[in-house]
Amino acid sequence: MSFVIPLNPQAASAETMADRLALRLATTAVARDQAGGHAAEERQWIRDSGLLSLTIPAAHGGQGADWPTFYRTLRRLAEADSALAHVYGFHHLQLASVQLYGSPEQHARYLRGTIEHGWFWGNALNPLDKRLVATEVDGGYRLDGLKGFASGALGSDQLVVSAWLPDREALLVGVVPTGRDGVAVQGDWDAFGQRQTDSGTVTFDQVALAHAEVLQAPGTVPTPQATLRSQLAQLILVNLYTGIARGAFDAARRYTVEESRPWFASGVSRAADDPFVQHRYGDLWLKVRPAIVLADDAAQRLDQAFRRGAALTAADRGEVALAVAEAKVLAHRAAIEVSSQLFELTGARSTSTRLGLDRFWRNARVHTLHDPVDYKLRTLGRHALLGELPEPTAYS
Amino acid sequence: MSFVIPLNPQAASAETMADRLALRLATTAVARDQAGGHAAEERQWIRDSGLLSLTIPAAHGGQGADWPTFYRTLRRLAEADSALAHVYGFHHLQLASVQLYGSPEQHARYLRGTIEHGWFWGNALNPLDKRLVATEVDGGYRLDGLKGFASGALGSDQLVVSAWLPDREALLVGVVPTGRDGVAVQGDWDAFGQRQTDSGTVTFDQVALAHAEVLQAPGTVPTPQATLRSQLAQLILVNLYTGIARGAFDAARRYTVEESRPWFASGVSRAADDPFVQHRYGDLWLKVRPAIVLADDAAQRLDQAFRRGAALTAADRGEVALAVAEAKVLAHRAAIEVSSQLFELTGARSTSTRLGLDRFWRNARVHTLHDPVDYKLRTLGRHALLGELPEPTAYS
Amino acid sequence: MSFVIPLNPQAASAETMADRLALRLATTAVARDQAGGHAAEERQWIRDSGLLSLTIPAAHGGQGADWPTFYRTLRRLAEADSALAHVYGFHHLQLASVQLYGSPEQHARYLRGTIEHGWFWGNALNPLDKRLVATEVDGGYRLDGLKGFASGALGSDQLVVSAWLPDREALLVGVVPTGRDGVAVQGDWDAFGQRQTDSGTVTFDQVALAHAEVLQAPGTVPTPQATLRSQLAQLILVNLYTGIARGAFDAARRYTVEESRPWFASGVSRAADDPFVQHRYGDLWLKVRPAIVLADDAAQRLDQAFRRGAALTAADRGEVALAVAEAKVLAHRAAIEVSSQLFELTGARSTSTRLGLDRFWRNARVHTLHDPVDYKLRTLGRHALLGELPEPTAYS
Amino acid sequence: MSFVIPLNPQAASAETMADRLALRLATTAVARDQAGGHAAEERQWIRDSGLLSLTIPAAHGGQGADWPTFYRTLRRLAEADSALAHVYGFHHLQLASVQLYGSPEQHARYLRGTIEHGWFWGNALNPLDKRLVATEVDGGYRLDGLKGFASGALGSDQLVVSAWLPDREALLVGVVPTGRDGVAVQGDWDAFGQRQTDSGTVTFDQVALAHAEVLQAPGTVPTPQATLRSQLAQLILVNLYTGIARGAFDAARRYTVEESRPWFASGVSRAADDPFVQHRYGDLWLKVRPAIVLADDAAQRLDQAFRRGAALTAADRGEVALAVAEAKVLAHRAAIEVSSQLFELTGARSTSTRLGLDRFWRNARVHTLHDPVDYKLRTLGRHALLGELPEPTAYS
Repeated sequence: MSFVIPLNPQAASAETMADRLALRLATTAVARDQAGGHAAEERQWIRDSGLLSLTIPAAHGGQGADWPTFYRTLRRLAEADSALAHVYGFHHLQLASVQLYGSPEQHARYLRGTIEHGWFWGNALNPLDKRLVATEVDGGYRLDGLKGFASGALGSDQLVVSAWLPDREALLVGVVPTGRDGVAVQGDWDAFGQRQTDSGTVTFDQVALAHAEVLQAPGTVPTPQATLRSQLAQLILVNLYTGIARGAFDAARRYTVEESRPWFASGVSRAADDPFVQHRYGDLWLKVRPAIVLADDAAQRLDQAFRRGAALTAADRGEVALAVAEAKVLAHRAAIEVSSQLFELTGARSTSTRLGLDRFWRNARVHTLHDPVDYKLRTLGRHALLGELPEPTAYS
Repeated sequence: MSFVIPLNPQAASAETMADRLALRLATTAVARDQAGGHAAEERQWIRDSGLLSLTIPAAHGGQGADWPTFYRTLRRLAEADSALAHVYGFHHLQLASVQLYGSPEQHARYLRGTIEHGWFWGNALNPLDKRLVATEVDGGYRLDGLKGFASGALGSDQLVVSAWLPDREALLVGVVPTGRDGVAVQGDWDAFGQRQTDSGTVTFDQVALAHAEVLQAPGTVPTPQATLRSQLAQLILVNLYTGIARGAFDAARRYTVEESRPWFASGVSRAADDPFVQHRYGDLWLKVRPAIVLADDAAQRLDQAFRRGAALTAADRGEVALAVAEAKVLAHRAAIEVSSQLFELTGARSTSTRLGLDRFWRNARVHTLHDPVDYKLRTLGRHALLGELPEPTAYS
Repeated sequence: MSFVIPLNPQAASAETMADRLALRLATTAVARDQAGGHAAEERQWIRDSGLLSLTIPAAHGGQGADWPTFYRTLRRLAEADSALAHVYGFHHLQLASVQLYGSPEQHARYLRGTIEHGWFWGNALNPLDKRLVATEVDGGYRLDGLKGFASGALGSDQLVVSAWLPDREALLVGVVPTGRDGVAVQGDWDAFGQRQTDSGTVTFDQVALAHAEVLQAPGTVPTPQATLRSQLAQLILVNLYTGIARGAFDAARRYTVEESRPWFASGVSRAADDPFVQHRYGDLWLKVRPAIVLADDAAQRLDQAFRRGAALTAADRGEVALAVAEAKVLAHRAAIEVSSQLFELTGARSTSTRLGLDRFWRNARVHTLHDPVDYKLRTLGRHALLGELPEPTAYS
Repeated sequence: MSFVIPLNPQAASAETMADRLALRLATTAVARDQAGGHAAEERQWIRDSGLLSLTIPAAHGGQGADWPTFYRTLRRLAEADSALAHVYGFHHLQLASVQLYGSPEQHARYLRGTIEHGWFWGNALNPLDKRLVATEVDGGYRLDGLKGFASGALGSDQLVVSAWLPDREALLVGVVPTGRDGVAVQGDWDAFGQRQTDSGTVTFDQVALAHAEVLQAPGTVPTPQATLRSQLAQLILVNLYTGIARGAFDAARRYTVEESRPWFASGVSRAADDPFVQHRYGDLWLKVRPAIVLADDAAQRLDQAFRRGAALTAADRGEVALAVAEAKVLAHRAAIEVSSQLFELTGARSTSTRLGLDRFWRNARVHTLHDPVDYKLRTLGRHALLGELPEPTAYS
């Protein structure tokens, strides 16, 4: 594959690294969207890029990038390939979970371990899915059951897992190496978009979880700091959506300029000179740009809150959640609208399967169903009317 | 295939026939959308349904249905399978072309021939595509070149063809049997939607066209009657779009009622009881229903104009074109919006490839690019402001 | 006032009568909107027009027009003056109430009386407003209290009144002559739109109501027929909204064509040639036209239901209510959007108070708050999802 | 007027000053909107507030505030009273014109003069309006003719004026004291909104303009720096619109919480608990907030460009113009939509003239017609497609 751009992470800033990785992923994105399945080679490219240690604090050997920087790299990748960008984003979400929930020993073991062993992390944490049951045993817990939609699980080295203790009616969060006995990741993710997020079902059959692997013991009352995890996750979605929107916008723009024919009744000789085409591009841009600006604003606020650590108050956490919710609605709408409307501007010939321009809508459509946008709007309205802050949940 | 509903056309009205055919097509629609390619078996089902003679006047042995009836059958089929509905619709468009352009002898030969031989007609008429050239020869013309996006050509028996005479700067329209020497239909249609419309490129290599096969001689000034063809075509698109919108709406509704889970923060036990879900269904319905009502209204007007025959005035024709344009914009928007927004109401699990719910958007998206909606709006605005009627073209 | 068009009702059909009355009302509409208050002279024009007997059955001496005809006259008047059109519409709503609730003797007395005495009817029926209390006395009831927002009360001859019986927790409906002792109509309506609807508060101080004047006795379980009243009322609103939308559209159109200057960067010499202006007119028209078509469709259904009389089923009544709700949402949106957006097309100079073009928005804005559009959408969604018909209330 | 908050400019920052002035203006805003005319007393409050010297550089005795600070004060005032905020904004636009066009001597004279004499500046600069003609005479020019829509002219001390030299086909810009012989300001502004902007016609009858008063000589080729004036003006409009949107949002919110009744079918006991009401507030907030964020972003960019002075390049100026155009479209839409839709959330009783809630829509509607939003969208689309920067004009 001589056309692939060689990467030299040491010499490049995070954004340059992301830009190069994005260009590399773009070379195969259309083909892989059509093929689906696990992108083993491209996940290796991500490992090779050096970006997997981006958010690990320097004290643990990482690059110690702030959250705004991370989110910009994520968005850049999502412009090219929102499925692998999701895998990348959720890797960092698990690392953040270790930081938010874990003890200093766990920080050292897992964060430094990621540097040393090049671990790729996957997600098996979903508080609403109680099908994975933990039973107390000597030295820890035994895990049995399953977890659906486990993003990035296939091909991962470590999993952050939530499990339910029925008799205590409580949840625990822990770390399980993906290769541990009894863990099996299925390739059963079959959505029509985001096809390579490796979001299969993970089954657990008598899997051991040692006390030292428990990040959050059952019944722990979450602190404002701990509940930042859902905001980190939501802002990953925001930046995936804005990345899709921006990627779709740019792909459409290029096609209109380079390929589209003017409409015979337009009176112009280039499609890009058609006043209706120009007007619609202006309108679509005004969906993309505010979403990006608010995403960046929310990232700044989230970063400040994250750095406050255990001192973070519920009120401060609530303000972050509002900013993230605002950005989420705009990003959701931008991704769906731009990816669907772009075809009015590129025309009939742009629907060739060969070009794969429909993948933006399919990716956006599948990904934006994570949690309903109407409840985000309700949250914003409640705050406007009643001053209520979003209640911390896995989604807000 | 024991599950297939047996059809008995003689005992059923056109709409019952269409309903039964639609149910039959629905049994394989998701699988065929994924496979793409030519639907030989299902096109046989259409032949078997008896609907291919629906619009042929009784005088020529057909069922003599009026246009509103035809369009309702088309819409019903499009709810289930908008690709084959398109093939069905364009068959009737070619029969109408024979009626609008042809001589009484041609009416007799082609319309009655369709009854007797069970001909399926395909489209190779596109005035903007001048790559098919006609050369005058003894007894008629020789055709050389090609025609793109020839809907329903693959698997057809007869083609209505437009060809360009460069030295006369004029167009002719004629009928060519698909099986004639020198005609070749390619299976090169590869759009991401409407995958089974058999809209490949047709190549012509020294193909003979006899004078008796010429429906419209080069340089004929089209009468208002003749220019009704583009309105018949546009209203086919309108009803395909409304069919997609209605089909998507119904599929979503069923899924929400039968499968969707209520959102955890909604406070209701069924998704269908969620006030936001109800509100959005009301809103989507108000995209579907006006489009249908205006489509039916336009069909009535078009039918009256068609029956007026050679007596049709340019002004009357213009009024029809306005009504069709109005319906077209509403139908376009309904198809795109309902097929994209429905997922907000069915949720993440409804994106499984197995369900194929994304086919409505892909079909709508590909099909609505036939001609730009912005120019329809301009046409309506010009009429509102200046009283101008749409100029008769292949699209208006 | 030599410019006023003389009316000759006997020689004209209902729509011609409405057209002439509308032209007459238009001559003073802008000035009266600015002045507010009671339009005594113009209400006399309405009496003179002959339209007050339009919906009275021929058996009682009226013109026996069907409901679609009535609604078209209403819409026509609303294009010119939606405040007086409201007064006119509510007059006929009261006459319909007599027909729906009353006995044959009451039909004779009140309908024929309207013909003979030229009565103008006003509304004091509002089941949600229980501030008017009825006490049983010898020969009937005594009424005390007040009724707000009594449309058309000022200047009326007869009122249809609802009153609350606290100890029976029941409602009665009756007829009270506006001039009866103890009745006082206040001119306290001060909304910023619909300024001449004469919708003041009516106070009742020991007002007598005889048994023979009671249309609906306390505790009567309403029949489907009786509950048609709210649909008649809702469809009056629908046609007022569509009238406003159409009136605004036409006023804007005239201004753009006759007065607006082209934008300096548009490259055209007439505003009406600007492609963006044309496009927006097309778009606005597609708000107006579907609303009108659905309003007419709902009127047909309502008329059929009305004629079914006591045989009307709850299911049939429910279907009418759905059709009216559909039309209501479209009409609401058309009126608000067209009346606000038109200024983008007429330009800065069109905001002169002298022209009064803002009255369309003010009228639409005030009138569309009668009942919330979101609950109409919920009703439509519930039906789509669950098959539920709207529950008969004063608003649905 | 004991309820008026005493102002102490010396002790307060600019934003506090603006907040106090806004609260003071709010006490009479509804009444003054209804009365229209010249707000002499309130313009004195603006003088008293100390804000008239806000943007004057410290070197000339002013407060030297940066542009973002100025625009925030403007927005705050517009929340309360967008007409007087406009007068305030245009005062500073004239001061900026002196800085952008004038010589160091003129800076000293006019800026320091504003401090010393408390001058209030009005606008008579409009390059598209060529009805004011300059004739060369000894020592300068003679001005004859008129200027329409001269914002803030009535009640001003100094005017910045553009005049046309027909034979040279060129424009000059100069300063004329409003009280100079031959200058007359008419109170003929009669729009239905922004009623107290004092935007009457100014007539000039043989008015002298000395060479020393000419800021820009006829035929001067404008530098990128000079053309920043139109961006300063556009961003004034942006912040007036966002101020109106925010003011309308807050007024609606207060009314819903304090006054609105829940809809009888809502099942909640407070309007603010209605899920549809909450959802709509969330939606409206997402019109207001991005407009504010982009307005602030554009102000930062404009400030940097302004400080670059004569070194400003056309490309840098173009980037500013794009940011301003983006913010302008969002602000335009926010102002129109929030001010119209708010009534869905406050309900029928909120339309009382006494409350004056319609003034937000009337103000937004009149003010947003300054230049067409469609051409802003075209500008943004052209840039997206073709990389073209906005051509410097009086509007872009």
